[in-house]
Amino acid sequence: MLASIAHRVPPRSYGPWEQVASTLAEGLVARGHDVTLFATADSVTSARLHAEAAAGYEEDAAVDAKVYEALHIAACFERAAEFDVISNQFDFLPLAFSRLVRTPVVTTIHGFSSERIVPVYRAYDDIAHYVAISDADRHPSLTYDATIHHGIHLEQFTLGAGDGGYLLFLGRIHPDKGTAVAVDVARRAGLPLVIAGVVHDGRYFAEEVEPYVDGSAVTYLGPVGPAERDRLLGGARALLHLIGFDEPFGLSVVESLATGTPVIAFPRGSLPELVDDGLTGFLVADADAAVDAVRRLASLDRAACRKAARTRFSAERMVADYERLFARISAT
Amino acid sequence: MLASIAHRVPPRSYGPWEQVASTLAEGLVARGHDVTLFATADSVTSARLHAEAAAGYEEDAAVDAKVYEALHIAACFERAAEFDVISNQFDFLPLAFSRLVRTPVVTTIHGFSSERIVPVYRAYDDIAHYVAISDADRHPSLTYDATIHHGIHLEQFTLGAGDGGYLLFLGRIHPDKGTAVAVDVARRAGLPLVIAGVVHDGRYFAEEVEPYVDGSAVTYLGPVGPAERDRLLGGARALLHLIGFDEPFGLSVVESLATGTPVIAFPRGSLPELVDDGLTGFLVADADAAVDAVRRLASLDRAACRKAARTRFSAERMVADYERLFARISAT
Repeated sequence: MLASIAHRVPPRSYGPWEQVASTLAEGLVARGHDVTLFATADSVTSARLHAEAAAGYEEDAAVDAKVYEALHIAACFERAAEFDVISNQFDFLPLAFSRLVRTPVVTTIHGFSSERIVPVYRAYDDIAHYVAISDADRHPSLTYDATIHHGIHLEQFTLGAGDGGYLLFLGRIHPDKGTAVAVDVARRAGLPLVIAGVVHDGRYFAEEVEPYVDGSAVTYLGPVGPAERDRLLGGARALLHLIGFDEPFGLSVVESLATGTPVIAFPRGSLPELVDDGLTGFLVADADAAVDAVRRLASLDRAACRKAARTRFSAERMVADYERLFARISAT
Repeated sequence: MLASIAHRVPPRSYGPWEQVASTLAEGLVARGHDVTLFATADSVTSARLHAEAAAGYEEDAAVDAKVYEALHIAACFERAAEFDVISNQFDFLPLAFSRLVRTPVVTTIHGFSSERIVPVYRAYDDIAHYVAISDADRHPSLTYDATIHHGIHLEQFTLGAGDGGYLLFLGRIHPDKGTAVAVDVARRAGLPLVIAGVVHDGRYFAEEVEPYVDGSAVTYLGPVGPAERDRLLGGARALLHLIGFDEPFGLSVVESLATGTPVIAFPRGSLPELVDDGLTGFLVADADAAVDAVRRLASLDRAACRKAARTRFSAERMVADYERLFARISAT
């Protein structure tokens, strides 16, 4: 398994690609597979670890991204003959190596950062095995072997009471994630908003979020680790996920469901696949409808949210899906 | 031959890596070799052209550098079995593919953009064939097969009279190239300075060069094509090459010599290998010494400059050096 090296595996806080690589690698090892994880040297795994970079390039300025991406990907392909299948969780660059080895490469496409990267996926469509992370994220010009929704470790999330009296924003502070919309909706709904996550767009934060942060109506906590994440999610009345882009998959959405907390979201990208409208949250057309949805939260059952997460978004389900796919591909 | 795809081959104006790739490819074809040039689709060559990118990523915003670098390099390595040798004029990324094919890869190292890229070269030192472009640019931790100085097409440069009454700066406008030092030296020497080249550092240009541009004492022409380059060089009393970095090779230095124009330079990097002090120019310790050197220009013989260029820096010499190296490597 070729992980991203922006962060270690699993990530300390932000790092959805690295989180998925970790969950999948650990799950496959638990099911008895011999897994070699290509990741940063500070990664923590029960798989065999092969590291070229000492740390993630987002975490250590001494690690040059382009240099270590090259060494990291090459290391995996140079050992390709040892593996039945290569699980590429890295983005498009490994595809460029894929015709030079016999080992099948299964590429999980974690979203298209821009339409400009599609030509590489198209160039390898004939030999590649693509996995979409949601049906919504399937690109019409590519051929996919499967859609596999991400799964999470349910045991790391506790069914909470949702009795903290606040709404929660959890994710990167960026217009894509709709932080400012969440501020607006919470204010109009008359509930405090707690914001947790890394600032990915400093100007957006300074201009559209920070002016409202007063420590009571709006609180900003910065990035949070797993334990606080669980506590914050479990105490929230709802997660506000009022995104400004077609999100390929929302890990925080299914994490919220795992704590029993419903999600109020705009129905863009994968969201209709993640939230059952009227059961595990509300899919709303605009900010006005989001304010209205906050008032209807009492009609939702927190146990039903947790159950949906367990049934549809568990690590076990994800690992089983990939295991089936890898078995099928390596047998042909 | 794997060229850089920042610009087309040969470059319209700036593009030293693409210029060397062009000179070498054309020279090998002229000597009867079957050469496939991997370059942009708008490249002009008598070799077989394989293009993935429509144009250079520095010249066409629609070309994503990372995407097309991947497709471009992969295309070459996917066809590796067709070639006796791959001449890598691209930088370090192709090395990552080099263990996956049997064809030897000869990598011309066009300089180290930073010490941070050295780990990739070191990781492939065992199987790589490195060519230094000057002895000065050899990195102590790497093993080289040869130093091959660049060569130029002498027939594209005319022995000029040096009677334009000006000093010349030719190259990127950047502190590395010493544009502001050239302005200072020319003013103190009492001669007009003509500046030609692309602005690579806008702030440096605006603050340290542009204030002196008055169209008479200091003239700025922008980038210039081959014909004007030849005319400008041939009319200059001297080329001022008062660099602020250890330059791996200075193409403009040998182009200047080819027009008979001597070079006044700081003796950093490859410059002592390019300029014969007291014969084809002056190697000077500082700006004061450069001003003094301008006054001693009459002691130099322009024909000797042209002769040095013909003897040591012709395309034919460079092509013959590479041909010998490629033959030796493909025979082993």
